[in-house]
Amino acid sequence: MRESEFLQTLHFNSLRLVDDGSIVNMSVPIVLAIDDLCKNNIGDSTSVALVDDKDKPIAILNDIEIYKHNKEERIARTWGTTAPGLPYAEEAITHAGNWLIGGDLEVIEPIKYHDGLDRFRLSPAELRDEFTRRNADAVFAFQLRNPVHNGHALLMTDTRRRLLEMGYKNPVLLLHPLGGHTKADDVPLQWRMKQHEMVLEDGVLDPETTVVSIFPSPMHYAGPTEVQWHAKARINAGANFYIVGRDPAGMGHPLEKRDLYDADHGKKVLSMAPGLERLNILPFKVAAYDKTQNKMAFFDPSRPQDFLFISGTKMRTLAKNKESPPDGFMCPGGWKVLVDYYDSLTPAENGRVPEPVVV
Amino acid sequence: MRESEFLQTLHFNSLRLVDDGSIVNMSVPIVLAIDDLCKNNIGDSTSVALVDDKDKPIAILNDIEIYKHNKEERIARTWGTTAPGLPYAEEAITHAGNWLIGGDLEVIEPIKYHDGLDRFRLSPAELRDEFTRRNADAVFAFQLRNPVHNGHALLMTDTRRRLLEMGYKNPVLLLHPLGGHTKADDVPLQWRMKQHEMVLEDGVLDPETTVVSIFPSPMHYAGPTEVQWHAKARINAGANFYIVGRDPAGMGHPLEKRDLYDADHGKKVLSMAPGLERLNILPFKVAAYDKTQNKMAFFDPSRPQDFLFISGTKMRTLAKNKESPPDGFMCPGGWKVLVDYYDSLTPAENGRVPEPVVV
Repeated sequence: MRESEFLQTLHFNSLRLVDDGSIVNMSVPIVLAIDDLCKNNIGDSTSVALVDDKDKPIAILNDIEIYKHNKEERIARTWGTTAPGLPYAEEAITHAGNWLIGGDLEVIEPIKYHDGLDRFRLSPAELRDEFTRRNADAVFAFQLRNPVHNGHALLMTDTRRRLLEMGYKNPVLLLHPLGGHTKADDVPLQWRMKQHEMVLEDGVLDPETTVVSIFPSPMHYAGPTEVQWHAKARINAGANFYIVGRDPAGMGHPLEKRDLYDADHGKKVLSMAPGLERLNILPFKVAAYDKTQNKMAFFDPSRPQDFLFISGTKMRTLAKNKESPPDGFMCPGGWKVLVDYYDSLTPAENGRVPEPVVV
Repeated sequence: MRESEFLQTLHFNSLRLVDDGSIVNMSVPIVLAIDDLCKNNIGDSTSVALVDDKDKPIAILNDIEIYKHNKEERIARTWGTTAPGLPYAEEAITHAGNWLIGGDLEVIEPIKYHDGLDRFRLSPAELRDEFTRRNADAVFAFQLRNPVHNGHALLMTDTRRRLLEMGYKNPVLLLHPLGGHTKADDVPLQWRMKQHEMVLEDGVLDPETTVVSIFPSPMHYAGPTEVQWHAKARINAGANFYIVGRDPAGMGHPLEKRDLYDADHGKKVLSMAPGLERLNILPFKVAAYDKTQNKMAFFDPSRPQDFLFISGTKMRTLAKNKESPPDGFMCPGGWKVLVDYYDSLTPAENGRVPEPVVV
C-alpha cells in the first residue's frame, strides 16, 4: 500500500479507486515495513525486487514510495486498543521497521510454500473459475481458523438448505480456512487441513458441493475491523453469501478480564461497512450439544438445560488429554487428527498434565 | 448518537443516512455518557429530559437507546493512541459513565450561555442566512483556537484576493473560533473574542467581508480525525472553501518527544474523506516574520535567514512577561488584550517569572 491507501484504510476502512471514484472496502493495511538500513540501501532507486527466503526474486515493486510507519497509530486504529499482547501486532508490527514501502506490484510468479498444501492455495480468480466449473448459482463462504466440529457442519448444511429454499439450484460452500499467522494456542494449518479432509472423507460435509481452499491471510484478531476484510476477500473470490458469527475475529482483552470487542459489533459493523452494500450476511445461529439427541443442534432457548456448550478451550483440553468429546460432537476421523496433533508435541508444548511414573 | 452512528463514526468516519443512503462525513462521536445509577433511574422509560445546570429542561431525547461506552476503543479509534494525557479524553471520557444514551433529539430552546457572547453563537442556519444577506458568492472558513496574528490575517486577506482572482465577486470570511473545551494553556474564549474584536477594530481584517461567530465544539486535538469534523461543520454552516494548515488539530504526543500526528496527514486525510468530496481545500501557506520588511509575510525558501518563526508558545511567553513581539507581528490593540489576560491571572496561574522584591 502507498501512504494514501494506508491512511484511507486506517481512517475510513475503505478506498476510493483512482480510476472511477468507486469505493471498495479495505479495513486492514497490507503494508511492507523496512528498517533504516534497508531504506538507506534503497536510496534513490525507484524500483525494488521482493525476494523469498532463498533470495529468489518473486516480485518487483515499481514507482516506490517510502513513508513513516507510525506503529502506535496503526495498532490503535486497527484494534481499538494499544494494550501489549495483541498476537499479530507483536509478531509483525512492534518489532518491524520504522518505514513502510509501497508501490505498483509486479508479480513474477505466484508464491509457492512447498509444504504439501499449495494445491489448496487457489487465487481469487482460480476460485471464481472453480465455482463456474461447478455451475454454482450461489456461493456461501465460511471463515475458520479452528477444526470443524459438527456444530459448524450443521450450520453449513443448514445454510445450503436455506439457499435451496430461497430458489437457488446449486449453492456451493467455500470452506476457507485461514492460512497465515495464528496465535500460539490455535491448531497449526497442517493439522487443521488434515482435520478438514477427514470431515469431508467422513461425509460430514459433501465434497460435491464444497470447495476447500486456504485463505493466505494472517489472523489479526481485530474483531469488527478484521471481519470486513474476511468478508471482502471472499466476495473477491466469488462468494455472495457470508456466514458471520458471534464476536468474529475476536479475542480476550490482552490485559483485562473481558472480551476485547462487543460480541455484536462485528455483525453490526459488517452490515454498515462501505463497499460491502451488496454482501448478503447470514447470521450464525448458535449450535450446541443437545444431550437429549446426542448430537450438535441449534440451541433451543426454551430448554437450555438440555444443551452443553463446548468451547474451543474445552475442546483443546479434551484432545490434549486424549479424552473423548461427547458422541456426535465431531466425526471420529476428525477427532483423531486433533489427538494425534497434541500427541506429536513434546510434553512442554502440549500442556498436558503428565502421568505419574510408577517406580 | 445511537450505537449504529457511534460505530460508523469510529470505523468509517462517515454515516450512511437511513433516508436516502447518501454518505455524510462524521469523524468524532457526539455522544452522552451516563453512569450505572442514571441508567437504573431511567429503567424502562423510552424518553428522557436533558436539563441544564439549573435543572431546567432544554431538550427531550425520545425513543432512547442505551449501549456500552467502551472508552478505550473510543479513544484509540478517535486519537490513534491511548496514551494518558489527551486533554479532551481526560476531561470528558476517562471519568465519564460506562454507558452511552442516544435517541431522537427534540430541542425545547436553543442553549444560551449568558456569558455576554451569545450574540456570537449563530446556528448553521443563522450563518447561512447571514451569508445570503451579505450576498456572498463564496464563503471561506478559518478554524482557530488562538489569538489572530498578522500571519493569520495575511493568509485570510490573501485567500480573499485569490477568490476574487478566480472570478468570485463577494467572497466572505467565516472567522469561526472554537468555543468549547480547550487545553489549560490555550487562551480562554472570553479573551480570544476580545482579541478578535480588536483585530477587526484595528482594520487588520475587514468587518464588511468578515463574519465572526463561535463554533461551540470542544477541541479534541485529534488531528486528521478532527479536521474532518472542523471542515464538515463549516460546510453545514454555508462555507464552500476551507483553509487547512500544517498539522491541523495536532498536539505533541502526551508521553513521547514528538508530534502526535504527521504534519501532512490532516490535509491528506481531509482530501480523501468520505462525504467531503465537494469541499474546496485551500492549503495554508506558511507565514513568518520577515525581518527585512518588519512584517508577517509568506515564507520565501530562497532567503530563510530573513524569516523568524514565532510559535504559539513563544507568543504566550512574550505576553506573559509583558514583552513586545516584533513590530508588525500583531496589531497593538490585539496584543494589549493578550497582555491584559496574562496580567489578570495570579502569579501561580500565569507562569510568569516573578520579579525579585527589593527590601
